[in-house]
Order: sequence, then C-alpha cells, then structure tokens
Amino acid sequence: MYNLINDLYQKQRNLVSIDYDESLEYISKILPLKIHKIPSGTKCWTWEVPLAWEVKEAFIENNGGKIIDVKDHPLHLASYSTPIDKIISKEELMKHLSSNKERPNAIPFDYKYYQNDWGFCVQFNKLKDFTEKNYHVVINSEFKEGELKIGELFVKGELKETIVLVAHLCHPAMANDDLSGVSVLVDIGKNLLEKNNLKYSYRILFLPETIGSIAYLSQNEELISDMKFGLFLEMLGNDNFHSLQFSRQKNTEIDKIAENVIKHNQKEFKTGDFREIISNDEMVFNGPGVNIPMISISRWPYPEYHTSDDNISIIKKENLEESKKLVLKILEALENNYTPIRKFKGPPHLSKYGLWVDWRDDLELNKMLEKIFLEFEGDNSIVEIAEKLNLDFFVLLDYVNKFLQAKLVEKK
Amino acid sequence: MYNLINDLYQKQRNLVSIDYDESLEYISKILPLKIHKIPSGTKCWTWEVPLAWEVKEAFIENNGGKIIDVKDHPLHLASYSTPIDKIISKEELMKHLSSNKERPNAIPFDYKYYQNDWGFCVQFNKLKDFTEKNYHVVINSEFKEGELKIGELFVKGELKETIVLVAHLCHPAMANDDLSGVSVLVDIGKNLLEKNNLKYSYRILFLPETIGSIAYLSQNEELISDMKFGLFLEMLGNDNFHSLQFSRQKNTEIDKIAENVIKHNQKEFKTGDFREIISNDEMVFNGPGVNIPMISISRWPYPEYHTSDDNISIIKKENLEESKKLVLKILEALENNYTPIRKFKGPPHLSKYGLWVDWRDDLELNKMLEKIFLEFEGDNSIVEIAEKLNLDFFVLLDYVNKFLQAKLVEKK
Amino acid sequence: MYNLINDLYQKQRNLVSIDYDESLEYISKILPLKIHKIPSGTKCWTWEVPLAWEVKEAFIENNGGKIIDVKDHPLHLASYSTPIDKIISKEELMKHLSSNKERPNAIPFDYKYYQNDWGFCVQFNKLKDFTEKNYHVVINSEFKEGELKIGELFVKGELKETIVLVAHLCHPAMANDDLSGVSVLVDIGKNLLEKNNLKYSYRILFLPETIGSIAYLSQNEELISDMKFGLFLEMLGNDNFHSLQFSRQKNTEIDKIAENVIKHNQKEFKTGDFREIISNDEMVFNGPGVNIPMISISRWPYPEYHTSDDNISIIKKENLEESKKLVLKILEALENNYTPIRKFKGPPHLSKYGLWVDWRDDLELNKMLEKIFLEFEGDNSIVEIAEKLNLDFFVLLDYVNKFLQAKLVEKK
Repeated sequence: MYNLINDLYQKQRNLVSIDYDESLEYISKILPLKIHKIPSGTKCWTWEVPLAWEVKEAFIENNGGKIIDVKDHPLHLASYSTPIDKIISKEELMKHLSSNKERPNAIPFDYKYYQNDWGFCVQFNKLKDFTEKNYHVVINSEFKEGELKIGELFVKGELKETIVLVAHLCHPAMANDDLSGVSVLVDIGKNLLEKNNLKYSYRILFLPETIGSIAYLSQNEELISDMKFGLFLEMLGNDNFHSLQFSRQKNTEIDKIAENVIKHNQKEFKTGDFREIISNDEMVFNGPGVNIPMISISRWPYPEYHTSDDNISIIKKENLEESKKLVLKILEALENNYTPIRKFKGPPHLSKYGLWVDWRDDLELNKMLEKIFLEFEGDNSIVEIAEKLNLDFFVLLDYVNKFLQAKLVEKK
Repeated sequence: MYNLINDLYQKQRNLVSIDYDESLEYISKILPLKIHKIPSGTKCWTWEVPLAWEVKEAFIENNGGKIIDVKDHPLHLASYSTPIDKIISKEELMKHLSSNKERPNAIPFDYKYYQNDWGFCVQFNKLKDFTEKNYHVVINSEFKEGELKIGELFVKGELKETIVLVAHLCHPAMANDDLSGVSVLVDIGKNLLEKNNLKYSYRILFLPETIGSIAYLSQNEELISDMKFGLFLEMLGNDNFHSLQFSRQKNTEIDKIAENVIKHNQKEFKTGDFREIISNDEMVFNGPGVNIPMISISRWPYPEYHTSDDNISIIKKENLEESKKLVLKILEALENNYTPIRKFKGPPHLSKYGLWVDWRDDLELNKMLEKIFLEFEGDNSIVEIAEKLNLDFFVLLDYVNKFLQAKLVEKK
Repeated sequence: MYNLINDLYQKQRNLVSIDYDESLEYISKILPLKIHKIPSGTKCWTWEVPLAWEVKEAFIENNGGKIIDVKDHPLHLASYSTPIDKIISKEELMKHLSSNKERPNAIPFDYKYYQNDWGFCVQFNKLKDFTEKNYHVVINSEFKEGELKIGELFVKGELKETIVLVAHLCHPAMANDDLSGVSVLVDIGKNLLEKNNLKYSYRILFLPETIGSIAYLSQNEELISDMKFGLFLEMLGNDNFHSLQFSRQKNTEIDKIAENVIKHNQKEFKTGDFREIISNDEMVFNGPGVNIPMISISRWPYPEYHTSDDNISIIKKENLEESKKLVLKILEALENNYTPIRKFKGPPHLSKYGLWVDWRDDLELNKMLEKIFLEFEGDNSIVEIAEKLNLDFFVLLDYVNKFLQAKLVEKK
C-alpha cells in the first residue's frame, strides 16, 4: 500500500487528465480492472462529462523573473484553470491567488471545475514577496475532448446483491487525500479475489470524485437495484483514530455492523451522521434517486488536509494496515450476519446442549444468556442482537452458531 | 378595526339578546354576511339553544338608595340572571356577589348560563359599603323565545376544502375579549373577498361562544367533512406578544405553518398545547366527533381580562394591525404550501441551473442547499422541510420554486 | 394463609418428592384441585421430567461423631445430591460445602438439579469446626421413577380467555419463598370460586419451579392460545413494600392495571422490567414460543432469602392479607376494564347529564373532565385513559360508567 502512494502521489491527477490515466494504469497492473471510458460532453443525469485538461506551462513573473511556477509544484496551479497570457495589476492578481494562513509554508489545493476561471496557489508566507505593481501571468492550459475513466473490479459472490467499495483518484499531488484510500482499497480487492466462498458480490471502483460516480451510475443504471450497501474509503494513512460516517439511512445493517466492529476493536473512534464528517461520493451513491446506504471510513481530520504538506511523510504503514484490517473485519461480519429463528419452545435447557456459559469463562456473555435466547424470534439479525445487548458481533456469532449446530435455531 | 370596537364595546351582548343582534347587524354592513337563525329550544347534539334574555332594570338598594345599578355598567348584572324582587339579608346577598380582589376598582364579568340563578358583580373596594343588615334586590329580567344568530361569510376558492375562521361576539361590555378578535376577522374577511386566486375556500363565522359553534355545526353537519383547518381569533388589541395555541392534533399543516410564520416574523411569542393557553370554540370545532384541527391566536394573558377595565383604553391600533398581518401571512403560507417531488437523479448540478446560493448572499440557505435537495422525495411539504432545517417558510418556498421552474421538481 | 405456611414450611419439598406431594395434598383439601401427574423421563420441549429424589440419611462425621446431619435441618443437604459413602480429605470436602458469609448463623439453600453432583450446606460460623484432615461423608439418597405433580384449579368465567395465576411449591424448608405466594394464591382461589359473574376464566397452578411450568405447558399446548395474561406470586409475607415486575411486553393491559392499582393503593412500591426484580416461572409462561404476558408481585428483597432464616418467624399475617387484597384489586380492575366509545358529538353538556364534578368535590377529577371526554374515541381503555391522565382506575371507572348509564358512550 505504501509503495503505491509513494509511486503516485506526485502526479497531477485531475478529473480527466493524463496523470489520472497513468495512475489508473498503475493500479491495473495490480488488479484486473475493467476500465470504463466515458467521452467528454456525455450527458450524465443533470451533469455532463468535462473536457480533458492539460497544462504545458504556468507561471507568474515580474521583472525579477518567475516567482511562481507550476514546475516547482503541481499544486501551484488551480485545477482546470483557463489559459491566460497577460500583464495584470497586483490588485487583479490577488483575486486569483489562494493561500492558507493556518499553514503559511504550504501550498493549498484549489480548483476551478465548471467555473471558467483561473487561479494560482501560493504559500501564505510568500505573499509578502509580491511587492511590484504588475505581473505577467501565463497559463498555457488546454481543454480538449477526452475520456473520463473509471476502474472497476467485480468480484462475484453467491448472491447478485452487491457491496460497492469506492475511492476517488482525482486529487493532484497529495498522498493521504486521496491515495491512502485507493491503496487500502487495492489491497482489499486483492483479498476478496483470493476468497472463494463470498456471499455477496463486490464492485470496487476507482474514479474521479462526484462526476466519476455520477458518470458511472448514470451510464449503468441497471446495476443500481442490486447494490445493497456501499463503503467509501479515504484519508487512512495519517495519525488519527478512525471516523465512521453513517449512511443517510443510518440504521441499516452495514451501519450497525461497522459501528459494532469499530467499537469492539478500536480503543478510540468517533462516529457521525451522513455528511457531518466528510463529503465525498456518498452524496451520489446515497443521494437522490439512487440511495444505496453508503458509510465512509477515514481518519479525518488531519492538519495537512488539502495542502502540499499532505505528502508521503505523513503516511504511516501501520495505519494503512490497521485500516485495512478494520474494513476486512466489517466485510467479514457483513458476510456472516444472519437472522436466527427459534425452533424450540420454552426456555431451552442450556446445559443439556452445552450452551451454558459459566461466568468464570465469560462474564459478559454469562449475564446475557437469557436475553440472547429471547431474541430468536426472527425480528433481529445477529448484529441487531449484539447492538441491543452490547456484545461483540463475533463473540455473539460464535455463540449463536452453537444453537444453529444444535438445530435449536435456523437461519431466516 | 379600532372603530368597530369603539362603536360596539359598550353593548350588553349575550348569547341570545338584542345587543348581540345589533352588533351582528353592524358587521353585516361591512361584510356580506349570511345570518343563520336558530330558535330557542332547538336540539343541538347534547345541548339546546337557550331562551333570549333581556333586562329592564336591576339594582340593589338599601335605606340610602340604590348602591348597585346595571344602568351604571352592564357588567354589574351577571348574564342570564333570573328575576328577583326581594328583601334579603346581607349574608344571603354576599353569596350572589362577585368581585375581584386583584383589581379592586373593576367590575368583574360573571354569568349564570344554564344555572337558574342570579348574581351581581361589584368592585371589590365597594364591598365595604355593604354595612346594613338587609337589602332590596331587584332584577327585572325576562327569558323568552328567541333566535340564536350566527353571521357567516363564505369565500369560494378553487377547492371545496374549507378553512374556518371563528371569533365569538357574545361577551358584554368588553373590548379586547371579544371584539378585538371580531374586528381583525372582519378585516381578514375584506381581504379575502378581494382575492381572486384562492386555493382554499374560507368560512368566516361570528357567533356566541360554545353554543353558537355547537348550534352551527349540528345544524350543518354536511359541511364538516370539507373543513380542513380552523383558526380562532381573540384578544388581539392589548399590549402583549402573540400566543399560538396548537390544535388538538398539534402536528398538522396549519400548526406547522403558524409556528414557522410566527417564529420567523415575531421577536417574542409563545406556543402551547390545545386548551393550555385559552379555552374557546376550538373545543367544539376540534372536539369529539368533529375534530377539525383548529389553532388559536391571541395576545393572552392581559391583566384586565373579564373585568370592566377591558375597555377601549387598552386597545392599540398597531397591535390589531400587526395581528391582522400575522394571520394573513399564515393564510398566505397555507395557500402556497406544496410537496415537491424530485424529477432528477443524483445530486443536481446546482450552478448549471442557477440554484447555487453563495454564502455571502444567504449564509443560512447556503449551508442547507444539500439538505434541501435531499428532501424532495414526496414525504415532506415545504413547511415540513422548513421545520426540519429551521428555515423561513417563504425563503424556502422561493428557493424550491426555482427547482419547479427548472422542472427539477414537480408538485405532488 | 398463615396456618398453611406454618403447617408446611418445614417439609423438604423438591421437584419430584414425597414432601412435595404431601404439600399439594394439603392444598387439595382446601381447593378442589385437579392433579396432573407427569412421569419421570417425559420429554417436555427441550427438557425432560427428572427422577424422584428421596433421602434416607445424610451426614458428615469425623472422629468426634456427626458434625452435620440432615436430620437437624433439611437444608443441610443440597437438593438432588447424588449418593456417596466415602472418606475424603478436608480439601475435597470444602468444594462441596456451601455457606453464606452474610448470614453466618444460617444454613443456605443449595441444589444440584441436573448436575450429577452432591453438596452440603453449613452455617458459615460452623466452618471453623472443620479442623480435621479427613471426613466421612454419607448421603443415602435414591433417584427413582416418579411423577411430577401439578395442582390446577380452573374457575370458568364468561369468556374462554384465561388469566393464569402461578405459585411454585418446590422450595424445601422455607416459609416466605415459596409458601407465602402459595398461601395467598390459595385464598385468591377461594375468593374466585365464590364469584359467579366473572368475565375471564382463571387457571390457578401450583407446581415445581421451571420444570413444572414447562411440563404443564408442553403437555397442554392447546390451552396456550386462550391464556391472555399471567400473574406470578411469591415472597409476600416478609416486611417490605411490594415490587411489581412487568411482563416481557411491559405495556399490556395487565401491566398498566397492576401499576395503576399499586400506585393508587400503596404508599411505597417499586417496579422493574421483566427479569430485573425476580426470576421465576414467568420465563416459561412469558418465554419463547409461549409468550403470555406475565407480571410478578412480591415483596422482594428480604435478607433471609434462601437460608434457614426464611422461616415462619418472618411471616406477618397482615402482610399476607394486604398482598391478597392488592392482587384481588388488580383482578377486579382487569375484570372491569373496557374501552368506551363516544356516541355524542361536540363537547357534551355535562351539567345536563349530572356529569359535572365540582372542584370542591374532587379537584383532581374536576381538572380532567374535558380531557376525559376527549378520550372516548375507541383507542384507549379505562386503564389507558387513567394512565394518561394519572387518575385512579376505580375513580375514573365510576365516572365513565356514568357516561355509560347516560348512553353517551358504549363499550367497544
């Protein structure tokens, strides 16, 4: 995972661009991706696919020479800036400069998608060097017909019902946002490919944010009805505990499973409602007319967000590893969750079936024995029982599986 | 509005009485009222229409002459007092005297409806003048066949569904309770008559409290099913902020609209549950077997309530004007409320349709854009979305109307 | 009631045993019980009826002679202990001794049902006398085919719907747990037999805990569908206020009635959720696949619980009497509860029908008059209206019955 980030983080990925295509090509060598190509101008619901954008050169110069040059750092130029070659006043220039007072030595990330405008991004501390009255601004950028590309890995399971796993790949020259999510998702893809007894099918997508999801879904509407749940991954390499953002529905199976797994496996974490922690493609997948419950897992917030400080130095291998394990555990719980239905009447004679758990072996479970066997009425799945009784999903699963083996319950 | 109160407040209006009829006649000259006449003794559900009550004279005298005389103030005699001409002891007399210690110089309002009893109302400070042992009590009152009268203005709209607006007119010799509500309702009637694009039909009623509503509805049961909502008006001229009393159902469209309008248009106000602020005809309209959600708007409480101090001096023109505007705004919102249904898929491309609202133009709206377009699933009307997101009804209405014009939503 | 306890409390009742049978025989002389006999080994859902257990002798001796002998107190031997005749080390013996540090001079109650093990119960203060290295342990107990017995009194009412009243009878040599519940239930049985206008039918059961209920229900499954509610009685002679344990459903008619009656008739009481106060046969009746809402009434807790101190000395006649009255009052409310449906329209003219209640006669009721007549829409029974308005069930019943007599409401 770390290598992928290290190899790709300096590329100037943009919605439709050469560096984006090269990054997707790189992933294709690890996973057998199907690449969807959707031409510029294609109508996608209320949107359309933008033109490709390429930059040959972009700089600001004054009498002393170039003071800002995109060759020094891709983030110096706001994505999708329109071309210009003009001498303008300082006052006019300042309207087009972004900087970040909170991190004065970092170049912020900015973009002009759909705005027909241009901009440069500058370290806040460099603003004081703009002492002259006029500046020569050159942006040699080109907008042309291109193809928006989406990388898809489909892993077939027993059911047609699909879990969609998404990471976006369109953020230029940064590491944690968005390559850390991409790298973890690549490993999860490898892991799923190795399994041969999956219950659900899985659709893993690498795409440009928002327009990528809209383009994919609008061109593949027939897939939506089989999409049961979604999971968005991003910002997983930095040093912070995990944040779980619930789906718009909030109380679905994947919400409950993710919360149970994170609660029983992580010392610290936080949870938040839809769009209250981070904003990404869940607004498309879980949005109007689609509405697939999609949770997000990240390590938001982190101070280097959307600046040139978001580089390989803030990525820790063990964080990526821990996040991967967490997501795999959530998927494992999702695969194994079921609704037990009682086949016995009366309180079952636990000791006779080896179902008695002594408090000396597991105090928490011991206290719950009676409450557990009252929950086999077909109203609640394992995760819902676990939630009600505040038990670890996997501890409860193991115990209920014993009822299943004793034929005291069956799966609904 | 002020003139109506000034012209009528000294009349001795009672359930069925000459002064009541004259007051209704006065209103008839302003609005084209239909007058319903229901004879004494008519069965009205579990009630019946009372006899007319007229007083020729009523006084209490001792050796020094008359000490209380209804000629001095109509409130001196409790409404519907039975006739008497008798010398009685002070002890006996005291059982029939009402006074108000809190307002010692005011004559309180009292009534003996359905009680077959008599009473006088006296300033508390005057009680000390009752120093003699015996008193001559004379009430020359007459109970006779009459007609309970109800004034009705019907304004036809596009729909058969009717909004009922009610004020009672039976309180003798007071100004704020009940003529201020009557005067505001007269002006609202004029306003509605001028409109030619009303969605709802309106039924405006002036009647004696409780028995008037029971008589009207019991004799016109076929109208009930078209009555969608009701609004009761009273005590609107005094100096206090508005009180909104919710309907019995509490969460209906008119409750939500009234609360939204009052919240976004009045600095101070209070709200309360059904019958927790004031008690009037909403117990009939919103009561057993009828149950039309009826809210009440008043400026309750005020210290002069039900005394001779409730006269023209406590009525302020600007209060009446403000109350009228508030009620008209509630009706306007009711007329314009609708349920938007989404016709787009995915998050709409707001800027493309001119639906983007910059935070510099409207910060409150800007923060809610995303939450607004998630609410077009047909579950919530404009007022319900406004309530959820804590927005002004009319601000939200204007914004959602732009989606309507762009054909991104349609009306349910 | 007191006599029954006094006569029976020293018997060594066990699940299937001679003393149990004799105790049931004793009750049979008071109530016309039907005795169900279910042979050892009978399959009862996931359980089976145990063998009868009889003890001829049981003691522990050392060189100085017998130091513990079941002849001194039946509780010295754990119920259903297996036979033994062996010299064992002190260390080994100690694993088989129960004592209670909290009540050092009392013999605790212990049992080895379904465990194939043996044990003695000793006063904590006596443990210090076990100074030798080896002990001769003799238990001359016998397990043999027998019959589990259940005493049933069925009192037929107008309806097939049955109220099940249960007390267990299998606790050896104690008074409050479980004979106090048995004694109160016997008196309730006598009381019900005297009535000739019962709405519900009643099924009163005396049985061994858990296995008795399982045996009864599994062998009489066809009765379950008519069982509407259940009530379990136990620990009613000690000095403590009453505890009401709700059914698993918690919000059923019997839960609400019991709570109303206890609240308006007892100065002190507590309530608790299912299985949070005491654990008895409600887990069978209100358990998986049966699920008859069963409340429990007791005076839990008390310090002598499950020890030899739970004897006749802690039983007070007035407590038994008070508990009996409380239960009878609950049953009376249950018999009389109904759902009133309005036949009037509009607010009823209360005074005309003698339904006006002056605040000087009953302030609490006076304040509620209007709220009461709004509740006759058929959604709420008397107890539910009483709960909403915080009124005594019987006060409200009397008042609503006046509406019934005036034909203003009818029963649903």
